[in-house]
Amino acid sequence: MGATIIEKIIRKNTGIADAKAGDIVTTNVDRVMIHDIFIPFVAEKFEEMGFTRLWDPDKVVLIYDHLVPASQVDDTRHFRIGNAFVKKYGMKNIHRSDGICHQLMTEAGYVKPGDVVFGTDSHTTTYGCVGAFSSGIGYTEMASILGTGELWIKVPETIKVTINGTLPANVTSKDVILRLIGDLGADGATYKALEFAGDTVKNMTVASRMTIANMAIEAGAKCALFSPDEKTAEYCEIELSEDQKNLVGDPDAAYVREITYQAEDLVPVLACPSQVDNIKTVESQAGTKIDQVFIGSCTNGRLEDLQRAASILKGKKVAPFVKLIVTPASRKIYRQALADGTLLTLSEAGAIITHPGCGLCCGRTGGILSDGERVVATNNRNFLGRMGTSKVEIYLASPATAAACAIAGEIVVPE
Amino acid sequence: MGATIIEKIIRKNTGIADAKAGDIVTTNVDRVMIHDIFIPFVAEKFEEMGFTRLWDPDKVVLIYDHLVPASQVDDTRHFRIGNAFVKKYGMKNIHRSDGICHQLMTEAGYVKPGDVVFGTDSHTTTYGCVGAFSSGIGYTEMASILGTGELWIKVPETIKVTINGTLPANVTSKDVILRLIGDLGADGATYKALEFAGDTVKNMTVASRMTIANMAIEAGAKCALFSPDEKTAEYCEIELSEDQKNLVGDPDAAYVREITYQAEDLVPVLACPSQVDNIKTVESQAGTKIDQVFIGSCTNGRLEDLQRAASILKGKKVAPFVKLIVTPASRKIYRQALADGTLLTLSEAGAIITHPGCGLCCGRTGGILSDGERVVATNNRNFLGRMGTSKVEIYLASPATAAACAIAGEIVVPE
Repeated sequence: MGATIIEKIIRKNTGIADAKAGDIVTTNVDRVMIHDIFIPFVAEKFEEMGFTRLWDPDKVVLIYDHLVPASQVDDTRHFRIGNAFVKKYGMKNIHRSDGICHQLMTEAGYVKPGDVVFGTDSHTTTYGCVGAFSSGIGYTEMASILGTGELWIKVPETIKVTINGTLPANVTSKDVILRLIGDLGADGATYKALEFAGDTVKNMTVASRMTIANMAIEAGAKCALFSPDEKTAEYCEIELSEDQKNLVGDPDAAYVREITYQAEDLVPVLACPSQVDNIKTVESQAGTKIDQVFIGSCTNGRLEDLQRAASILKGKKVAPFVKLIVTPASRKIYRQALADGTLLTLSEAGAIITHPGCGLCCGRTGGILSDGERVVATNNRNFLGRMGTSKVEIYLASPATAAACAIAGEIVVPE
Repeated sequence: MGATIIEKIIRKNTGIADAKAGDIVTTNVDRVMIHDIFIPFVAEKFEEMGFTRLWDPDKVVLIYDHLVPASQVDDTRHFRIGNAFVKKYGMKNIHRSDGICHQLMTEAGYVKPGDVVFGTDSHTTTYGCVGAFSSGIGYTEMASILGTGELWIKVPETIKVTINGTLPANVTSKDVILRLIGDLGADGATYKALEFAGDTVKNMTVASRMTIANMAIEAGAKCALFSPDEKTAEYCEIELSEDQKNLVGDPDAAYVREITYQAEDLVPVLACPSQVDNIKTVESQAGTKIDQVFIGSCTNGRLEDLQRAASILKGKKVAPFVKLIVTPASRKIYRQALADGTLLTLSEAGAIITHPGCGLCCGRTGGILSDGERVVATNNRNFLGRMGTSKVEIYLASPATAAACAIAGEIVVPE
């Protein structure tokens, strides 16, 4: 019988030729990511567990992103603990202000197709965009991996999502994943792998796939998986091995569910307050007044997202009273958007451009909202209190929808 | 008997031909500035005083800068009160994310030579860079001006500061004002006008003069005054009137004190923790390890400051563990620095570039420090607790010194 992508990754990683969904296996971890919020807890657990050395310092990546630049006096304590850990255990892969962890892990070359990767953040599912098995874990599990290089997991069952056809001009991969989360429900894919296929997906950039993989966790998925192809190879700056090329779900693989979309049927959608699966069409919400727009985050802070927003905002102005916050996902993207004029266009339209980081998305700084305010945002969660007080209404949308709303001062369908 | 610059401004403004230092006069206010921190208090007092209309809405400028982008849930309450006030009283001059108030007031053309201007911020002395009498006031006084257009003042006595010669290549106007504050003491010019003259000052850009005028308050001065010249005219985009050309201290004017510097004698200096008048040479502090560098603020966030820093940082990297935060003073400067490659150079060196605003300078966001940390900063105050906890050590310096320190990771004399 054939295998799903996740089964193929696990078989190769563990050497168990017939590993299949439901099996409990011990994986060899190819890479781990720890960010600034969790490094103090990981460091404490690591020593509490009696470890005295990292299993492989080269495989550990520490990224300061949630607290950069520091907005509270406690933030720098996290940096200091991180810096001390780096020094004590000989780590080399550390990013102090280079951008958001989930962007950096593939962008900086830490994750390749077929890798098994864990991170102390729920959106670690992102690296499935290049065909890696990646998932979020807690700090105790992370401390254990740091000492042993292993983690046991139950091999996830797979839901196959096939999308064929050409997306309408105003529909992006963000609308695709929002629609899917709406159809699945926020717990509809719990502990499952979401395997994406179809020519719509094949035609997407890796950046667009990243948006989808990033939000897979919002349906409860353990991971998201895209088959590596020539775009993946170019993005990762590698030649795909035979094993990597083989990371395609077999026709006779066992799927617990199959979902199919025709791209032409899709429309711009929103995740309305305050659940990620409260999906409605943008059209149905048109006319709703807004106070702020946020374009950025690990979900939609890539160059194509900023360029898309800039193309809509070019020569126009953000509506009076509306604040537009733009946060590129990484320093590299920031520089690219700076060099190609994207940031200038956005600034001229009235955008407030921040340093790459997690600031507003995780409600720490850079545009915090208060009671009664409404924001259209391109990030991945609209939970109560996520970007300010619990009386803020967050609508999740694509960069195209967000940019159009910023100009209109209300919810509008992008052209 | 001749007159000082402040006496000339007051005579013209009040019509009292012999007004002189020590007189109590009622001035006609040409422009006022209120920022986001104080608008709620001004608005409340204004209505408590029984006013129902602004004396002249065109003369009132409201600037959101301290709280942009919002870093706390209460911040947006200030914006809402401001927005409601603007709407209720028909204000037109409002800047919601265009930069720091003291930069905008001259940059956006609100203040001209000879004007009498008050603002709800101590660094309102800044507009003396174009030969305006400008000073900080409290919110009750501001509410009163909003209703009446007048404010009584005692005409300040004047200390004349003359600087002749050519500044050494590594000495900037920041070093000049720091040295002066050190020599005067933090209360050495209390309620005095500081009048600047000499060919060093004449050769300075308006931007450089702005740095000096900005910090005049740190010696207690009521205002700082530079004679308007062709550079002022170009900066303000005006032709100077005869009255404006005449804003020069007369040779027989009455000064309470005269101080003279020879530019060639000046060296790079620092205001050491934690008083603005604790001035020491950079050389004497060389080797002191630092954790962060801040280049920006209304004191030193202008294009020439960023360019100077970029020229030093070009092709180099910020020292490991050191964070370099850069905050342009206005959106216009941000765009200029973006267009001419300055921001790219700074980002490549490792800088974290923020949106123009007051964030870090006033300790609200964007690089807050904690116990035991040391920062070299180009802003105007190093008081305990200003940029984080009360156990942070702040060294005030020029952008040249700050940039050199960022590379070295310790205090060094710029080349």
